[in-house]
This record gives sequence, structure tokens and C-alpha cells, in this order.
Amino acid sequence: MSPTPTSLALFTNARLVPMAAGIGVVEDGAVLAENGTILYAGPHAGLPDAAAGATVHDCGGRLVTPGLIDCHTHLVHGGNRATEFEMRLRGASYEEIARAGGGIVSTVTATRAAGEDGLVASALPRLDHLLAEGVTTVEIKSGYGLDLEHERTMLRAARRLGELRPVRVVTSFLGAHALPPGQTDKDAYIHELCDIVLPALAAEGLVDAVDGFCEGIAFSTAQIARLFDTARRLGLPVKLHAEQLSNLGGAALAARCGALSADHLEHLDEEGAAAMAAAGTVAVLLPGAFYMLRETRLPPVGLLRRHGVPIALSTDCNPGTSPLTSLLLTMNMGATLFRLTVEECLLAVTRHAAAALGLAGTAGTLEAGKRCDLAIWDAETPAELVYRIGFNPLHARVWKGIPQ
Amino acid sequence: MSPTPTSLALFTNARLVPMAAGIGVVEDGAVLAENGTILYAGPHAGLPDAAAGATVHDCGGRLVTPGLIDCHTHLVHGGNRATEFEMRLRGASYEEIARAGGGIVSTVTATRAAGEDGLVASALPRLDHLLAEGVTTVEIKSGYGLDLEHERTMLRAARRLGELRPVRVVTSFLGAHALPPGQTDKDAYIHELCDIVLPALAAEGLVDAVDGFCEGIAFSTAQIARLFDTARRLGLPVKLHAEQLSNLGGAALAARCGALSADHLEHLDEEGAAAMAAAGTVAVLLPGAFYMLRETRLPPVGLLRRHGVPIALSTDCNPGTSPLTSLLLTMNMGATLFRLTVEECLLAVTRHAAAALGLAGTAGTLEAGKRCDLAIWDAETPAELVYRIGFNPLHARVWKGIPQ
Ligand SMILES: [Zn+2]
Ligand SMILES: [Zn+2]
Repeated sequence: MSPTPTSLALFTNARLVPMAAGIGVVEDGAVLAENGTILYAGPHAGLPDAAAGATVHDCGGRLVTPGLIDCHTHLVHGGNRATEFEMRLRGASYEEIARAGGGIVSTVTATRAAGEDGLVASALPRLDHLLAEGVTTVEIKSGYGLDLEHERTMLRAARRLGELRPVRVVTSFLGAHALPPGQTDKDAYIHELCDIVLPALAAEGLVDAVDGFCEGIAFSTAQIARLFDTARRLGLPVKLHAEQLSNLGGAALAARCGALSADHLEHLDEEGAAAMAAAGTVAVLLPGAFYMLRETRLPPVGLLRRHGVPIALSTDCNPGTSPLTSLLLTMNMGATLFRLTVEECLLAVTRHAAAALGLAGTAGTLEAGKRCDLAIWDAETPAELVYRIGFNPLHARVWKGIPQ
Repeated sequence: MSPTPTSLALFTNARLVPMAAGIGVVEDGAVLAENGTILYAGPHAGLPDAAAGATVHDCGGRLVTPGLIDCHTHLVHGGNRATEFEMRLRGASYEEIARAGGGIVSTVTATRAAGEDGLVASALPRLDHLLAEGVTTVEIKSGYGLDLEHERTMLRAARRLGELRPVRVVTSFLGAHALPPGQTDKDAYIHELCDIVLPALAAEGLVDAVDGFCEGIAFSTAQIARLFDTARRLGLPVKLHAEQLSNLGGAALAARCGALSADHLEHLDEEGAAAMAAAGTVAVLLPGAFYMLRETRLPPVGLLRRHGVPIALSTDCNPGTSPLTSLLLTMNMGATLFRLTVEECLLAVTRHAAAALGLAGTAGTLEAGKRCDLAIWDAETPAELVYRIGFNPLHARVWKGIPQ
């Protein structure tokens, strides 16, 4: 006889790392979930009576953290840039690479050519690699379509990924990533995004947040401000690629608009950090791009700490500057390259990454009321998750209370 | 009716990367193997008549390279150093870490306490991670036992790993890794290794090569020379950790002794490179340790190129300075951090890694007479294997002609 179906799931024999306060471990912990939402997480001895009817999953004394959250990815894209990578190592100049069709234009061309099915098929192995490491929520940006039709295709592909795999996908509209090929008027393009593209895609329910790239080689603060005005009118939260290559004041602008996050931030200044702290804007640091581009300018971690700006880490998975699909390795890079502590690295892919996606109320910690997304690890200590390089100690992943 | 058993295996529909000359791809390639040894590797059209009776494996048009070779690991060890890693990120001093029991002494203590079964159990997940990325040959060093009994246990554990998994394990005796706890006389310890420990372990068939650590904090060239004399008398090849932190001339010494490899080499000089080139000694570069220790002194890649010294890359998997278990990531680090080309990176984990283990005649390329160890990849180009970061495109691994 099979047991009566029930919506109650109980995870026992867990060494819980709730991430609600630091990286303390609750020995002999338990998590009780109803319909995928946590009713209780804490010492086994404190379980409510409701636990009696639950389906029990024994975690075998393993470490259990919230499912990991990758809060900044360009996971959906056509093609790859391996040939460009190879040419650069052989000493090819920027011009030679451009003549060979390299750079972001090659990704735009490949993305437009791929179609929704092609984009989904090429993104799935990358997504599966993230899930295999315990990721349960992933943000995916558009930004290689750069017109209504192809930005729509990218966002639809992102939504499809969330249907094909047990993972929560959060989308960001990144039409303001670069000028589309052939277009030379940045103001005109931003107007087109504000008047036509963004309202249309928002109406279709494809946009969870609005993102932009504020940089000399991309868009100015004035252009981004116009975009953010449109987002506000549409009721959409905003975030921004800011201060990666220079200091334009993008982070401060984003914070004044109540942005969920400002991302990259190598050139952030004191004013920007203060504005972010005041607004609760999360600093999303992206060590994969720092590593791949061999940057020497570190993000100002000390400044962020001093102002109490929450720090998240993400793969920035993209074909040009960070073809990285390991959030565990991202944590190691955060520690090794940016000197974040183990606690900061783990907060950066759980609680703070949730906040960077506007999900602070439903994800990122193991607390009553949050989603029961868990990562169960063959590890003795939280530090091991950050210390190892190119190793995956995941034992199992739980999504909405269901072991995968 | 099942087919007649046969020792002939034929891999068809392969985009072959034989690594015998550069990284050229043989389209519509095939590999024919008899009893695990390659009879033919090349265009399908050139297959010998013997292929008619073979069991056929369709590679589906995928890229096929030689199985990868990790030629420098400390894969067998007790414990981990995650706590030390965590303390260092919190700003703990060298003294505080030592007081807390950190450093190599902690690994020696944990290794001695683990016993053979414990060492095997803890190494298996690390080994499995390497195999999952297409590794078919792995070198494993002793060097955390530092006395006869515990060095023997380490080497036996390494041999056991080769029985438990379909992989060729090559051992190196690294008794001259550090002074054992309590011992203060380096000369006396080297004498003990030469007179007692090494001869005993060699007689037991546990030693494939003899390695040492030549450095101010470890052993002098004179001490290493004595060790290498003993190796020569025992008919064992030698290799050396040399020029990692300073230039003692260890690489030149090793080359003069006909060493298979000299490893690390950040401080190698022209004389050392010339000696290595003359002797055919492979330069094994270890970017994982460079990354983890945030070294700024790059190994002299230009010098090695100029002298025609073959370059290998390896994980250096060890708990203190390189807890790295991804040879694919090691290739990416070789390119990103050391500016090796894609071709150099791939040679570095195939043909040149085989040479570093004295296996140039039997492994590292797809040629008649070599072992049929293959890695079959979901990738379009060789460059993709180096370009991606924290991603594993392996489709299947073939060991001794048998798909795993
Ligand atoms: Zn980005
Ligand atoms: Zn080593």
C-alpha cells in the first residue's frame, strides 16, 4: 500500500545552515514544508505537531543550506565566443577580432538566428550545470536581441527554461545593453525601448525587472534615467550594470530609483555606496568577468562593508566576458580574488542574491514563510563550499519541497 | 543472439583531435582498437580491413580527443584545510593559523590518522570528479606520511584507487616533501629516505617515480641530488618541485639527472630552461596554486617557448595550496592566467602530460600503438574545451577501448 498523498514534507537529520543570521549551523535540524512553503526550520526538538503527518526525508546528517540563487546571468544567448578567445590568446588585435566577426555583434547575430527553440536548446546544458550545483533560482537577462522581436524571443526562451526544469526563473529586460547593429543614435534607440519595446514585452508578462548598461561604451545616466522612468510607470523594479569600467554615477542613479541591485561596481565611489546603502540596493559582484578580463581594479569591498551595502555574487554567465556556469566556483573567486569571507560568499548566493531579485520575502533563507528550496551537501562545514575549486559536493536539491 | 565476443572496438563518426600534431581536427574520423590498443586512428576512409569484425561505437559526430592526463596531484590526503582558508579570509595571521593546528602539519596528522581505507574513501570523490571530465590517467604522490609506514599507506591507497576505478594511476614517492613533525635534521631525514624508506617501497612495487620539493623551506639541491642518486640505483625515474618560490637551480639539477619533469617553475632562469630542453624534461605548470596563493610572479612561458621545453598543466590537487579537481578549469587558468594558447593548453593535458609521466610511448595522442583512452565531447571546437569556465561538456569516456 502506498502512503496517503500529503502536501507536508519533513526533512530530518539535517545540519541546517539557515543563513538568516550568519553561517551558524543548527545541529540535528529539521525543515517542515507545506505545499512547498516552509512552516518550520530549526532544531528537530522544536518541530510543531503538524510534522506528524509529513512525508519524511532523511538528510543523513548532511549540511543543508537554502537553494543557491544566481542573480545575474546572460544564460540565454546564441553561439559562443571560443574562437575569439583563441584568437586573443594568439595575440590577435581588437581589429582582427572585429574583422573576423567577433565581439558582442557576433552574439547578437547568433542569438537572432537561433530562434526560441535554438536558444532554449543551447541554454539547457548551462542551466543544468547550475542546477547540479544546487541552484534553485536563476535570473536571466535579454539584451542580445536588441529589437522587439528578438528581445521577446530571448525572454520567451528564458520563461520556457523555467517550465522545462524545476527552477524559478526571474527575467530582466536588458534592451539597453548595446546599440543594435546599424543603429547609431543612442537617444533614438532608448526612445524606441521606452515607447514600444518595453511596454509591449511588459504587457506580455515577460519582464520581471528592467536592467541597463551604464557606461561610456553603452548608455549615459540620462538615457538610463529615461528608461527607469518608463519602468516605474509600468510598475517594474530596476537594476543596473554600473561602474564596471569607469565611474559615471550609475549606481547612485539606480539607488535613487530604488533599484534592487547595482552590478559590477569596480569603480564605485563613496557617494554611490552611501546611496545604495540608503536605498537597500544590493551590490552584485561578478568575479568571473574580473578573472576572465584580468582586471586589476578590485570592487571596493571595504567601502561596501563600511556602508553596510549587502553583497551578492553571481556567475554573470555570458559568452564574451564570463562563460562561467559554476556558482560554487564564483564563491571561490569571490573569496580568492575579492577577499570576501566565507560568510559573505554564502550570503552572496542566498539571502543577498534573493534581495537582488526582489525575492527577500520568499527565498534565500530557511525560515517559516519562505519557499522550501534546499541544497543538501556532502560537506562537513559551510567553509568547504567556498574552499574547493572545481568540485561539486551536492548530494541533492529540493525545489518547492520536492527532492529532485 | 548476442554478438560473438571480440576484442576489436571501432569508434566511428568522430571529429578526431589526435594531438599528434597541433590541434587539427580530422573530420569523419575513426579509431580502431584491439585489446585496448589503437590499431588505427584517422579518416574513416583509411580504416584497415580488420575493422570489419569490430564492435562499432558511433560517436555521433562529436569531438574526440585523447583521454586527459592529470600529471601532478596530491589527490590522496587526509582532511581538508577549509577552516584555515576561512581563517585567512578573516585576516588571521600565519601564527594564529599555526596555533590552530593549520598548515601542512595538519594534513600530515590527518593523513596518518586516516588509514588506507580512509584515504581511499576521501580521495574517491575527487578522483571521480576528474574522471567525469575525461581524465584517463592520473599521477598521485605520497608526501604527507613522511615515514615508512604512512608513505606506504598513501601509495597503497593510490594503487587501490586504480583498481576501484577505470583509470591508470601512476605513483610518485614524495617522501622529500617536508620534514616530518619532530624531525629537525634535514640531512638525517634524506639519509633515512635513501637508505630505508625508498628502497623498501620500491621493492614493494609501490613507486613509479621519485619526486622531491627543492626550496629553502624544504630541501636543498645537494639533498635532492642524494635522493636522485638512490632513485637511479633503483632504476626509478625522477621529477622535482622546483623554482616555485625562489631560484635554487633545482630544475637544472633535475634535468641533468634526466628528470621526466620539473614542476611549478615560476622562478626558472635561462640556464634551467636550456638544461630542461636539452634533457627533454617537461615543464609542469600549476595555475591552481598560482591562483589560490594570488601569486604575481608568472612562470616564464616565453622562455620555455624559446627553448622548446614542452609544457604540461596539472591540477596540483592538494588541500593546502590548490584544492582543485578540474583539469578543464586548469586549462582555462593556463590560458587566462598564464596566456598559454588553446593548442598549448590541450597539449599540456595530453601529449606533454604523458611525457611528464614517462608515458609518451603509450598515451597522450591518438596514434597506432597507443592506448585507446578517449574523451568524447559535446563541443564543436577544441577551443571550447579551454574557453568555458566551470562547465563540463564531456559526453563519454573510453578507457582501454571500453566505453565507461
Ligand atoms: Zn551582465
Ligand atoms: Zn605538488
